[in-house]
Amino acid sequence: MAANPTAAMIVIGDEILSGRTRDSNLHFLAGKLTDHGIGLVEARVIGDDRQTIIDTVNALRARHDHVFTSGGIGPTHDDITAEAVAAAFGLTADIRDDARALLQAYFDSRGIEATPARMRMARIPEGAALIDNPVSVAPGFSLGNVHVMAGVPRVFEAMLTGLLPGLVGGVPVRSRTLRMLRGEGEVADILAGVAGEYPDLSFGSYPFQQDGRFGTNLVIRGTDESLLDQALSRLESALSVGAA
Amino acid sequence: MAANPTAAMIVIGDEILSGRTRDSNLHFLAGKLTDHGIGLVEARVIGDDRQTIIDTVNALRARHDHVFTSGGIGPTHDDITAEAVAAAFGLTADIRDDARALLQAYFDSRGIEATPARMRMARIPEGAALIDNPVSVAPGFSLGNVHVMAGVPRVFEAMLTGLLPGLVGGVPVRSRTLRMLRGEGEVADILAGVAGEYPDLSFGSYPFQQDGRFGTNLVIRGTDESLLDQALSRLESALSVGAA
Repeated sequence: MAANPTAAMIVIGDEILSGRTRDSNLHFLAGKLTDHGIGLVEARVIGDDRQTIIDTVNALRARHDHVFTSGGIGPTHDDITAEAVAAAFGLTADIRDDARALLQAYFDSRGIEATPARMRMARIPEGAALIDNPVSVAPGFSLGNVHVMAGVPRVFEAMLTGLLPGLVGGVPVRSRTLRMLRGEGEVADILAGVAGEYPDLSFGSYPFQQDGRFGTNLVIRGTDESLLDQALSRLESALSVGAA
Repeated sequence: MAANPTAAMIVIGDEILSGRTRDSNLHFLAGKLTDHGIGLVEARVIGDDRQTIIDTVNALRARHDHVFTSGGIGPTHDDITAEAVAAAFGLTADIRDDARALLQAYFDSRGIEATPARMRMARIPEGAALIDNPVSVAPGFSLGNVHVMAGVPRVFEAMLTGLLPGLVGGVPVRSRTLRMLRGEGEVADILAGVAGEYPDLSFGSYPFQQDGRFGTNLVIRGTDESLLDQALSRLESALSVGAA
């Protein structure tokens, strides 16, 4: 079985690092990539700094099949992502006719003036493919293996939903979860034992608290559904036997 | 004015990258650091992989005054953070008497057996300072400038709240926000103009949608409260004049 494609995410925005805004795009992307059989291997949150964006894009695009970015492609002076991603490829991001036409039609239909600031959103590097924005028209773009999308969650989600079917995926990673009101410490040895029997699956243990009691979600992950079911049964019976 | 200390965060956990769990510790940390005058410059989300943890810790601890980690310090086989962070410093994380005593007293008081799995939570590198865990006792630790904390939000938050007053902070970064039901494109030029007049402040623009209308939060950030108030007034009057 060939290994699944890998991906990284870059969340771009001072507002995330200052605590002003809570990012939700990472969580959305992570779930969608898992379902599509692309493994999200790392994510980075960085500020609106040109050189940092360039360095981060170049480090991650060399290492992964796909890089997804969110944030910094609006019309204001602090929206520098498009230009910085282009620069990472040794290109510029100038106003491109196809993107300009999309925006112009949208502005015309709403009676909005096509100011230079608004037309900043038509800056697309030469050779990049536009990513459709069904929410507010201003497009994202794919340049090589880097997919540049908006930070506003509704727009990011709509862009990704349109983009993803066109990307080659792998075997979706599935999971089985066993939720118990028993602490991690109580099940750790049993879990480690069963995990050792299934080297093709990964076993995780995630504690929680509920009404002052400790609980644990045991999660088994892998691509083979029948193996997952088998491991889940094995874990359930090991835990019943182990529960005095 | 001396520059504020800088920090990075490392969120450790396969469950975040698979989309199973939504991280909330980054947002909590970001807000607390801003209030404390420590600048969060970058954050990385990585999986439960020993070498990745080692490499990431070593890259970031050399670059920042503080590194904060969350996740992977529980009792199960997939909790490898303590040992990996120790290895990043060329150390090991063995069961240490002070941490063992804390856990033993807690287990005794609750009639819980001190199994080897549970005692994994007493693995603390030599020379590290314990971070108090008022929720579930098992401590975190500070090793050099790396602060290792739990992933469960309630525990992470309690650990950080105890840790932070002991760290040297800087001048808190304050902000002023102007919320408007006008699109970014409409205010971009005015914003850029006012931003140019105040080089010591940073100006950000964050679009949102509400009931199908576009709105924008304009955020001014800086350490000088009176300068912030002055810039806010200037921005308000520029926008009123600009609004035909």
